[in-house]
Amino acid sequence: MYSEKVMDHFQHPRNMGEIENASGVGTVGNAKCGDIMRIFLDIDDNGIIRDVKFKTFGCGAAVATSSMATEMVKGKSIQEALKITNKAVMEALDGLPPVKVHCSLLAEEAIHAALWDYAEKN
Amino acid sequence: MYSEKVMDHFQHPRNMGEIENASGVGTVGNAKCGDIMRIFLDIDDNGIIRDVKFKTFGCGAAVATSSMATEMVKGKSIQEALKITNKAVMEALDGLPPVKVHCSLLAEEAIHAALWDYAEKN
Ligand code: FES
Repeated sequence: MYSEKVMDHFQHPRNMGEIENASGVGTVGNAKCGDIMRIFLDIDDNGIIRDVKFKTFGCGAAVATSSMATEMVKGKSIQEALKITNKAVMEALDGLPPVKVHCSLLAEEAIHAALWDYAEKN
Repeated sequence: MYSEKVMDHFQHPRNMGEIENASGVGTVGNAKCGDIMRIFLDIDDNGIIRDVKFKTFGCGAAVATSSMATEMVKGKSIQEALKITNKAVMEALDGLPPVKVHCSLLAEEAIHAALWDYAEKN
């Protein structure tokens, strides 16, 4: 049912945690399942995402996509990060069952919300 | 949204893992969200549940209820374990949001499936 990459990122999630005094924080919720996701970004003066962490109450698919998505945005510029779609994250994970696609959207939405938060503050 | 007890059992889940050569194993799935749950029981010759572990791909609510449910069945007889309802587990957690009640059912169903597996083997 789940690819090896999904299971790997679920069981060994990368970038789980919080960043104190983050440059941007985004919190989003999933109305369908009631789950929540929070992304913390540390962005340097050149607009490069130096560090990123996530916290979620969501399921394994939410954990795996956040783990992969945070790996993909780390070291990128804000412009590059905005171009990373949910589809690209799912492809990098070798896919997800259709019933889990709504879970994977949480990571993309939370990253966008955190970038928005950063933009508003600067 | 989530009680302190739910957050505690989600962030520090008790009895997560596997039991090798378990006396009974129960695996159930949740069609609504595509999540899976597996419970491993170690039952002694007197029918007492000596140890119990769980694994899940489910959300925080599934993790928290499994953590609490496994704590509640540990040390109990099979008869006593069968009487522990999902409602009792939710009460012990100081409740769950309505949207999450279906997630909490996974633990009860998986414990019953594992007890059934044990009964069939003995
Ligand atoms: S079921 Fe809620 S995030 Fe997957």
